[in-house]
This record gives sequence, C-alpha cells and structure tokens, in this order.
Amino acid sequence: MGFGLDAVVSKLQNLATSDHSSVVSMNIFVALLCACIVIGHLLEENRWMNESITALLIGVCTGVFILLVSGGTHSHILVFSEDLFFIYLLPPIIFNAGFQVKKKQFFVNFITIMMFGAVGTLISCTIITFGVTQIFKRMDIGPMEIGDYLAIGAIFAATDSVCTLQVLNQDETPLLYSLVFGEGVVNDATSVVLFNAIQSFDLNQIDPSIALQFIGNFLYLFLTSTLLGVGAGLLSAYVIKKLYIGRHSTDREVALMMLMAYLSYMLAELCYLSGILTVFFCGIVMSHYTWHNVTESSRITTKHAFATISFVAEIFLFLYVGMDALDIEKWRFVSDRPGTSVAVSAILMGLVLVGRAALVFPLSFLSNLAKKSSSEKISFRQQVIIWWAGLMRGAVSMALAYNQFTMSGHTQQQSNAIMITSTITVVLFSTVVFGLMTKPLIMILLPPNPNKGTSTTNSSLNTEPQSPKSVTVPLLAQESEADLEGHEVARPSSIRNLLTRPTHTVHRLWRKFDDSFMRPVFGGRGFVPVEPGSPTERNGLAWH
Amino acid sequence: MGFGLDAVVSKLQNLATSDHSSVVSMNIFVALLCACIVIGHLLEENRWMNESITALLIGVCTGVFILLVSGGTHSHILVFSEDLFFIYLLPPIIFNAGFQVKKKQFFVNFITIMMFGAVGTLISCTIITFGVTQIFKRMDIGPMEIGDYLAIGAIFAATDSVCTLQVLNQDETPLLYSLVFGEGVVNDATSVVLFNAIQSFDLNQIDPSIALQFIGNFLYLFLTSTLLGVGAGLLSAYVIKKLYIGRHSTDREVALMMLMAYLSYMLAELCYLSGILTVFFCGIVMSHYTWHNVTESSRITTKHAFATISFVAEIFLFLYVGMDALDIEKWRFVSDRPGTSVAVSAILMGLVLVGRAALVFPLSFLSNLAKKSSSEKISFRQQVIIWWAGLMRGAVSMALAYNQFTMSGHTQQQSNAIMITSTITVVLFSTVVFGLMTKPLIMILLPPNPNKGTSTTNSSLNTEPQSPKSVTVPLLAQESEADLEGHEVARPSSIRNLLTRPTHTVHRLWRKFDDSFMRPVFGGRGFVPVEPGSPTERNGLAWH
Repeated sequence: MGFGLDAVVSKLQNLATSDHSSVVSMNIFVALLCACIVIGHLLEENRWMNESITALLIGVCTGVFILLVSGGTHSHILVFSEDLFFIYLLPPIIFNAGFQVKKKQFFVNFITIMMFGAVGTLISCTIITFGVTQIFKRMDIGPMEIGDYLAIGAIFAATDSVCTLQVLNQDETPLLYSLVFGEGVVNDATSVVLFNAIQSFDLNQIDPSIALQFIGNFLYLFLTSTLLGVGAGLLSAYVIKKLYIGRHSTDREVALMMLMAYLSYMLAELCYLSGILTVFFCGIVMSHYTWHNVTESSRITTKHAFATISFVAEIFLFLYVGMDALDIEKWRFVSDRPGTSVAVSAILMGLVLVGRAALVFPLSFLSNLAKKSSSEKISFRQQVIIWWAGLMRGAVSMALAYNQFTMSGHTQQQSNAIMITSTITVVLFSTVVFGLMTKPLIMILLPPNPNKGTSTTNSSLNTEPQSPKSVTVPLLAQESEADLEGHEVARPSSIRNLLTRPTHTVHRLWRKFDDSFMRPVFGGRGFVPVEPGSPTERNGLAWH
Repeated sequence: MGFGLDAVVSKLQNLATSDHSSVVSMNIFVALLCACIVIGHLLEENRWMNESITALLIGVCTGVFILLVSGGTHSHILVFSEDLFFIYLLPPIIFNAGFQVKKKQFFVNFITIMMFGAVGTLISCTIITFGVTQIFKRMDIGPMEIGDYLAIGAIFAATDSVCTLQVLNQDETPLLYSLVFGEGVVNDATSVVLFNAIQSFDLNQIDPSIALQFIGNFLYLFLTSTLLGVGAGLLSAYVIKKLYIGRHSTDREVALMMLMAYLSYMLAELCYLSGILTVFFCGIVMSHYTWHNVTESSRITTKHAFATISFVAEIFLFLYVGMDALDIEKWRFVSDRPGTSVAVSAILMGLVLVGRAALVFPLSFLSNLAKKSSSEKISFRQQVIIWWAGLMRGAVSMALAYNQFTMSGHTQQQSNAIMITSTITVVLFSTVVFGLMTKPLIMILLPPNPNKGTSTTNSSLNTEPQSPKSVTVPLLAQESEADLEGHEVARPSSIRNLLTRPTHTVHRLWRKFDDSFMRPVFGGRGFVPVEPGSPTERNGLAWH
C-alpha cells in the first residue's frame, strides 16, 4: 500500500506539544475504550444498539465535550491517521476474520462470495464514479480531477458489515452469514486494491489499453497477495510442526503465530501488494494447519487473543471515527456553504443505495441461475438483507478519504474539505441510522424460529460447554469437526447439498489432496505430533 | 515518570526518511524476532545459551551486517528510545511478572525481598556513586555534575535477573527463586523511582533536609503507586464480577483486563507516580481476584497471552539493545581515546561487583538472624547465586542512561558519549559473559538432585497436564491451589514453616480478612458467580 509512517509522525508531533498532555490523551482514550466495553456489555440485550454504534456515539459525545472544554478550537485528542489504521488496526481485524471464518462455508460459497466481493465492488465503484462525475460537474464544488472521481467511487464502495454480522446468527442462517461475512472481507480488500490501483495510474489520458492494464494489475495483485499469505501460513505450520515448539514453551508458539501473521502483512506492504488479502489468507491457512499443530492451551489462547485484539481494534476505530467527526478544522471550510455539503452527502448516500442495489439483485439472480435446489437459492428476503448489510460505510472509507483528500490529516482546500465532511456525514449517518434499524429489520425479514432456536441451544450444549458469545463468533473447534465429518458421514441436512452442488466435487477433490499431500507435511487436524501425556494425545487417540 | 512521547517522535522522524525504508526496517525487525524465537527454541537444551543472550547476539550480528552494508554510517534500524521502552515494552513485562508471581512465596518472603530490592538498591547506588565520584574526578573524562554521578549510581543499580531466572527451577528451590524474582521486580521499580527522584531534585545545594525530603518523596511514591495499582486491580475485579461480563463474551473480559492494567500504568504516569510499581501490584491483585471471576477460557487466554506479550517484549528489548550497541555515532566520540572508555567500563563493572557483594552478604546475614530454623536461612551457596543473579545489567540501565546522557537518542558531548558507550559495554559484557556462565555456575552450586527431580516430574504429571515450560513459568492454577490448602491442610514440608515463621501469622490474618471481607466483594477463588453448565460450575462444585 505504501502509506508509510509520515502521518504517524505528524500525528505524534501534534500530540507531543507537551509530554503531559499526551499522557492525558492516552489516559482518556484507554478509559473511553473501557467505558465502551462496559456499556456495550450492558446494552447487549438491547433491541437497537450494538457495540459499534455505542463506540461511535461515545466518540461523538467525547468530541462535543472536548469541543466545549477547549472553547471550540478542537474536538479530538488524536488526528485521524490512515497509517495508524492500516499499519496497526486493520491487520488484526482482517487476520482474525480469516482465522475465525468457517472455512467450509466460505469455500463452498467461494464463487458467489467472490462475485459479490470483487465484481460487486467494481460495479458499485463504477456506478458511484459515474454518478458523481455527472452530478458534481454541475455543482460548484471546486476543482476535481478524474482521479478524484474514481477515488470517490472506491471510497464509497468499501462497505462495513460489522453491524449486520453482530445481528445475524450463523447457526440459523449459515448461507446468509457466510455470504455477508465473506463479501465484507473481499470487499475491504478489493476496495483498497482498487484505490491503490487508481492512485498509481496516470489517468489523464484514458484509452482502452489502460483499462486492460488496470484489470491485469488488479488480478496480479489479487493472486500474488493470496499466494504470499498462503505461503506465510504454510511456513508457520511447517516450522511449528517440524521443530515441535510446544515441547518447550506455549508462549513461543503463540508469539510465532502472531509475528508470522504480522510479518506476512508487512512483507506484502514491502512488495507493494495488498496486505489485507495476504493477512486474510494467512489467517485461513493458519487456522487450517498451524492451529492444529500447537498445544491445547495455545489453541485456546490464540483463538481468544486474536478475537480480543480484533475486538479492541474495532472499538478503537469507531471511537476514533466518532471523535474525529466533529473536527472543527474541516467544518469551518464548509460552514459558509452548508447547503452544498448536505447536498453532496445526500447525493453520495443515494448513489450508495443505488450502487448497492445494482450489484446485489442482479448478482443474486445470476448466482441463483447456477443453483438447482430451491433451498440453495438466495431468497428475496435474503437479498434485501445482503443489500442492507452493505449500506453501512465505516473506517475503511474514512481512511481512504483521508488518504485522498488530506495531507497527513489536514486540508486547506475547500473541495477537499467538502469531500471529507461528506464522507464523515455518510459514515455517521449510515452507521447510526441504518445500524439502529438493522436488528428490527432482520427480526421482521427473518423471524426467529422458536423450535429451531431451542434445538440449536441443546446441540451446542451437548458438543461443548461454550460462552454465549461463541454462538456468534465462529468456533474453530466445532467447525473443524464438521470439516472432518463433512465428506464421510453426511448429516441428514447436508445430503442434498452433497448431491446437488457442483462446488462440492471441488471441495472433495481438495479434501483428497489435502489429506494425502498437504496434511502430512504441514500438520492439521489428525496429523499433529503427539506429545506424551498431553491432552492432544488423549484426544488424538480418540480420533484415529 | 514523565518521559512523554517526544523521543518516539524523533525516532519515527528518523525512520520516516522514506516510507519504504521504514517498512523495510519493520520487516527486518519482525523477521529477526521470529528468528530469535526459533533459534531460542533450538538452543533450549544448550548448556550455556539462553533466549536473552541469543537475542543480544543476533542483534549485534545484525548491527555488524547493517554497518557493513551501509558503509559504516549506521548500525541500527531504530534509534534506541527510552519512551518506546517505558511506554510499550516495560509495562507488559512488569505486569506479567506481577500476574504470574507465586503470591504466597512472594508475601511470605516479603520483608527479605523488600530489603534486597529497596534497601539493597539504595546501598548499591550509594557505593557506585561514591566510587565513581572518587575515581572519575581523577580521570580526565569531561564536565560531570553531582547529578550525573548520582544518576550513574541509579543506572548501574538496576539489575536484570532474567538470565538467572531462566535457569532456576522454582519447584526445586522455591525460596531462592522467589527471592531472585521478587528482588528483580522491586529493584526495577526502585531504581526507576530513585532515578526520577534524582532528576527532579535540585542537587546543587546539599543539606540534611534534602536527604530527609528525598526519603519522604521516595516513600510517598512507593505507597501511592502501590495503592493505585491495588485500586485499579480491585476495580477490574469488582466490575467483572458485578456485571458478569463473561455472560455475553469472553473477549470483553480479556480486553477489559488488558485495558485496565494499561490504564493503571498510564494513570500512574499521569500523576507522576511510578507506573512500574502500580502495574506490578495491579497484576498481583488481578491474578488474586479478577482472574477467578472470568470464564475458564478467559483464564487460559489471559495467562498465556500476558506471558507471550511479555516474552516478545523481552526479546524485542535484547534485540534492540544488541543492535544499538554498535551505534557508530557514539563510538566515534570515544575512538580517539579508547583507553579511557575501556577503563571507565572496567571501573563500573568492578563497582557493580563490589556494590552487589556489599548488599547481598550483609543483608542475607541480617535476614538469617531473624530466622530460627536452618532450612529457612539463606545458605552461602544461595547467597552467591543471589549475588550472581544481580550482576547482569539490562534494558532498564540502557534506558536510564539514554535518558540521562542523550537528547532523544543522540549526543554530541564527549563525556556523555563515554558514559553511553560504557553503559553499552557493561550491559553487553555482563549479559553475555556472566550470562553464559550462569547455567554452569548454578549446576555447580546447586547440583540437581536426581531423586527429587523425578518425583517433581511425577507429581506435576499427576496434578495437571502441563507443557514443559510451565515448570519455570509460575502456574497460577497450581499456585492458588496451594494457596487454598496452605492454611488448612499443611503439607509435610511446610509444617515446620507454619510453626516457626512469624510472617505466617500475618499471612493467616490476611487470609481471614480476605475470606470474610475482600472475596465476597471482589470475587476470587471460590467466590465466583457460577454459570450453569460451564466448566466453572463443574469444578466449582468440587471445590465447595
């Protein structure tokens, strides 16, 4: 991505006007994070709220408070920096997404997910770019180039499906969950890759060869990033299996997994690839191989530690975005033309709605054409939920907008200030208003089945004692159990799937390849060196 | 402490000469960390090496390599910053020390540990200050003030007992282990508090009232910091118990524990207290109360995650120190007078040896006077090991020296350059040479008892399946088990202790107070809300 560290420097310079004030702001920030967690816990049962909206609102409130205390000079204690975001906050979130994803569901629906995530993002970006080019030219906003319009397309094509995922139950609606989740990750990666591709191309002379070159570049980035991530994951699995690091210390295993994952991200950045894709696939490979090669306690630790880091990073992000929303510096530039700013935000919001509809419904139709059984098809209600899930805009949009329209978090130009404030407005509006409506909407579209709900609770109690959150967070252990049984003992509900889905054949071939070539080398469930007297041995004997 | 962030800024400025070069250096650093972990694992069985020496040597080798590649212009990829150290690396290390310490052993030997850690550090500091004042005045080093001499005393009073702790087995020699471990932590805190007290006092006019004021200030810092840490720990225990956060999510519990611990450290910094002491006592309280209030998986996660973070921070530190050792900038100033630098280092090393002897042997004698049974006394061999354990100088010394003698990692004055290079020499020499001799020395002084060794292995296999590292890392679960039984079912080996040690009465009174007032409010073992169907319930029933 090549964003580097200079904005971090300027942020810190901004901070370090005096030593003590930076300590004060760190204290406030950590205390606010704690408050968000506690309040988020208290609102868990609430019909409307969720953690991200809570953090966003607390951020806005703190912003207002700081604005009042500082006499209207500033509203934040940290200047938004896309580097802090891309170097420290995003990698753990995306890695955890890959690490916790239900791999089978993800790969069974791989084609649909890629269609929504990659092709859909391109459709959305094109529509938004086309829309703003047509409309903004007629408005008196300021000097904007073709690169800016394309960047706006990429910025507003980046969705944030956290709100919807917090509501969906992946045991009750596995297809829907995996589609929304998978699309979200692929969309993040696609929009960042797209944004970088736009920035690096000279867009002043447009001819057909550039479009071709652009697509080629995009595919190259996609493939090499994926391969790098897979390679890093396999290397970690091989090293941990071969050297049997758990023999001496569980800490070394956990540390090595964390560092290798981060290394894969940084390596991708070093080679100007997409770190997000790399770290996502690294997470998938690590959960498939490496995770099974470590000791029992390392498994529990990594599962929860990665989820916790990702959780804190997410709250941090929303808090940050909320606090930065009232940044007086940007609003001052647009305050003499409030109408323009509102109009721009409304136009962008409208384009987001249209662009999203233009990708979800046609692509769902295409996807349904390829499926034979009606239970596999995406129903209209589900399509509405998928459409809705992608309406929210979040931190990725903010980070990309700051990268395009500011110099290290500051801007002096009016058109840039309008774009920044409009992005903030769209992010706040979509997250808060649409976010608040998500739970009730899903309740209406997918009324919870009381019988089914009870049976799920019973079965989950039978398989393993779990904390309530694990119903929403994919459980690796359960998932791999399903993986293992999937192709041998078909459970009643999946017999039809086995017969009808062509992707299942691919999956079966992969299983065969995996069992005979990959697992003996890289470990994985059932191929772990057995430690005498360890829990692995006891369970391991039961598996063989 | 009030070091603030300005050196981090200058470090990053140094880094961010170009975006890509900073990505390169981050890649190298993360890759080196991985290499250290793997090599440390391979050398685990080695007679001489340990993890810190490995990291230090890899750091030095990398420094040489960078020096050659860059044509002799620089040897490091990061300028040593005491802020990076005090804000990010030290807090997790010290917190983990408090979190994993065997509380009973620590508090039973509390008086001896405080004598060694606090009084001993003062003795060591006084002797070194006195020595350098006498000797350096006769050498032509450059302009040095009384504050500089006192600072040198504090800098070289800070020990680093990691090497020895990696060798000692706390099951075989619990008294020795707890003394060395406890002294190390208290020493860290004392020397930092001492250093700050020296820096903040105007030392040009010395009169008796200043000495009194100094001691008063020291005691005030010690007490308030401890209270703040205990308060933060109790608050986290109360919140987690009262709101029963594990009901909805284990991630929230883990996140809250981490953030509260870090908040306690930052709050101490905010109030100009000693963050190290605060976070250490916060760790102790958290492991005594909070840790028992969270779910089973949070317990495993926090135990290993904190240990892993601390482990990585330690390796990072040694790697960093090793890489910085060859910093050409400082060596250039002393290159025309190599004799002086060597002489200064030798004098300092000698004073460290003498100062350490002057505290260990007399204080051990005093400590032995207060004890009646011979098995409780510190034998001469053990005294030699305690003396040896405190000879190594590490990252705290480096950080303090950089704070005293440089401006954000750079220096232009010759006397300062000599002090920095001498500190580096002493740290490298003591860690590598003394460190390499630690394992063989302890083998000679405490020959492993083969019968005892076998019985330990058996008993540990019986109590719970554990990874081999858990023999050296204190196991919270085992420890609290011992805690619980300690005052009711006295095991054969501790009957005598119960009868002879006066500290045991204090301990018993504390247990009574803890059981009747503290635990009902703040939770802790046996006072945890029981979650239906969870492992806590099943184990909980067995405990009652």
